[in-house]
Amino acid sequence: MNIYDVSRQAGVSIATVSRVLNGNAKVSEATRQKVLKVMEEMGYTPNVFARGLGLNTMQTVGIMCADSSDSYLATAIYYLEQELRNYDYDVLLCCTGYEWENRKKYMELLLSKRVDAVILAGSNFVEQTREKNRYIAEAAEKIPVVVLNGYLEAENVYCALCDDADALYRVTKTYLNAGKRDILFLGRSLSYSGVRKRSGFLQAYEEMGLKCRKNQIIIQDGTIDEIRDLLIGRAKQGIREEVIVTADDELAIGAVKYAKSLGIQIPGDLEVVGYNNSKLGLCCEPELTSVDNKLEYSCMNVVNVLMKVFHHGRVPARTMISADLAVRGTTSINFLGGF
Amino acid sequence: MNIYDVSRQAGVSIATVSRVLNGNAKVSEATRQKVLKVMEEMGYTPNVFARGLGLNTMQTVGIMCADSSDSYLATAIYYLEQELRNYDYDVLLCCTGYEWENRKKYMELLLSKRVDAVILAGSNFVEQTREKNRYIAEAAEKIPVVVLNGYLEAENVYCALCDDADALYRVTKTYLNAGKRDILFLGRSLSYSGVRKRSGFLQAYEEMGLKCRKNQIIIQDGTIDEIRDLLIGRAKQGIREEVIVTADDELAIGAVKYAKSLGIQIPGDLEVVGYNNSKLGLCCEPELTSVDNKLEYSCMNVVNVLMKVFHHGRVPARTMISADLAVRGTTSINFLGGF
Repeated sequence: MNIYDVSRQAGVSIATVSRVLNGNAKVSEATRQKVLKVMEEMGYTPNVFARGLGLNTMQTVGIMCADSSDSYLATAIYYLEQELRNYDYDVLLCCTGYEWENRKKYMELLLSKRVDAVILAGSNFVEQTREKNRYIAEAAEKIPVVVLNGYLEAENVYCALCDDADALYRVTKTYLNAGKRDILFLGRSLSYSGVRKRSGFLQAYEEMGLKCRKNQIIIQDGTIDEIRDLLIGRAKQGIREEVIVTADDELAIGAVKYAKSLGIQIPGDLEVVGYNNSKLGLCCEPELTSVDNKLEYSCMNVVNVLMKVFHHGRVPARTMISADLAVRGTTSINFLGGF
Repeated sequence: MNIYDVSRQAGVSIATVSRVLNGNAKVSEATRQKVLKVMEEMGYTPNVFARGLGLNTMQTVGIMCADSSDSYLATAIYYLEQELRNYDYDVLLCCTGYEWENRKKYMELLLSKRVDAVILAGSNFVEQTREKNRYIAEAAEKIPVVVLNGYLEAENVYCALCDDADALYRVTKTYLNAGKRDILFLGRSLSYSGVRKRSGFLQAYEEMGLKCRKNQIIIQDGTIDEIRDLLIGRAKQGIREEVIVTADDELAIGAVKYAKSLGIQIPGDLEVVGYNNSKLGLCCEPELTSVDNKLEYSCMNVVNVLMKVFHHGRVPARTMISADLAVRGTTSINFLGGF
């Protein structure tokens, strides 16, 4: 028997039961009485739940993100905060930057603050070596850690992600099926999510028994202008593709600007697909077709996972959702079969 | 005598003195000894500073913002968090939305969490009536409140802003001096900052002894596409301007898309000026000329003000900085005199 039984029996949410136990004033007196009555009937006293429900805890979750001014991460933080607030949890925000040393320090800081859990927002937190991920696994010995859009195998570490590999696979497959062969994959990094995107791209080629040339894959960090210039440089060497699929919208906008610079028509001569379905894609001309990784949904998953862990529920180590595609002006192909 | 004397005498920052007093491990042993020696020489013991330095406090600042996924606010949160972290303060983030009732509740929540101060990020927190601002003034009776980019007159409320009126005045004046008369001001709201922008626009007309028609001012909230359609509708009624100055970059991008739709050349037939100098402006075509309200600098001011208040320093109720202009492809006029 657990908290779920109480919420089910009382016909209220787990958050409401939690609020009753925490003496939160937001609960109506009628609801409070109903919940307490159910508990009594079931032979429970609030103390039974005390540990699992976060009594005597800080009711605070630490969110670590590289940079909250990044539009993808900013949106994630917004959804996470809103969702955690629904369960009366506070958010302690840490903008860690990308340096491993600093991240390790921030984790120590959050542990010293006795937060109830840590959310790592962004797959860039998962490093390539076990050694560098050790501080995360060690933190998870004390409190649950949830990784948004990354994957790390360790006890008490949970991951909520979008199936990035599948999304890139489907986009690429659609173009290959339509007879396009010169497709460029433009990625930003070899983070977990970056690697997954690239592997989805490659899988589509493989499945069709087609060969993907080495220069069809570029992994390059840079501003919009830097990406534009990189592509202009390639084009001047005679390397041009018919389709550019990317790992984020800024890369895609770089591609749109490259086309503009050289008078290449979009989507006539070149099709471009972004990733993240961010507001940036609505600003460029034409507007960006972009993979919608349903960030709000992933953030809800992160918080759901945490609440289940807090209440000693069974939680899978990895929760994966499928992406959608927001089709706009930079593509003319029919994606209907693929999405 | 105060903490500044110690930091000056020891030749270290106030943050370092604070760290020494808080037993923070980030300080080298040599520095620690130096600071403690200065304190001894000056006849101080750490306890003297205890209250002012946040000992026995939560060392936590609450940040309230409407929506952290808004690119302007997301950037503000990033700078504020980084700056507060330098002083070993944690950030409790609250995304309040735009409903007054919810904001009031969030403020109560933060007070109940015993945060050391509250930062209201965005001028939309300041309401038109004294009644609706009362909860802010009442909170300020307990802890300092700093408003970023808004103005509210109340005891223990401090404001750090950019001179938005002056920025719009200078942009508009430059165009009037160049002989342009048909200038549209496109604002989003009548928040404190919104009103200031409009008044700067009007002041430029007034000073030149020129008349500004009523339909040269539009205050309209809406998405990029909605703003585009609004301007298309006006143009079809025969109302077209040579210049559109705006209160934010999204409005300006709406204007760029309107021009694109009707085949109006930018900057040949129409010049457009954005506001906030956000990343969005780098995504559109041509790239946006935009007022740079130096958000990072304002955020530094917010935190400086707070640290002074914590240490019982003298702090002006209002700290104002001047804007710059990032000149890009949507304008051809020479702003050099004005900026």
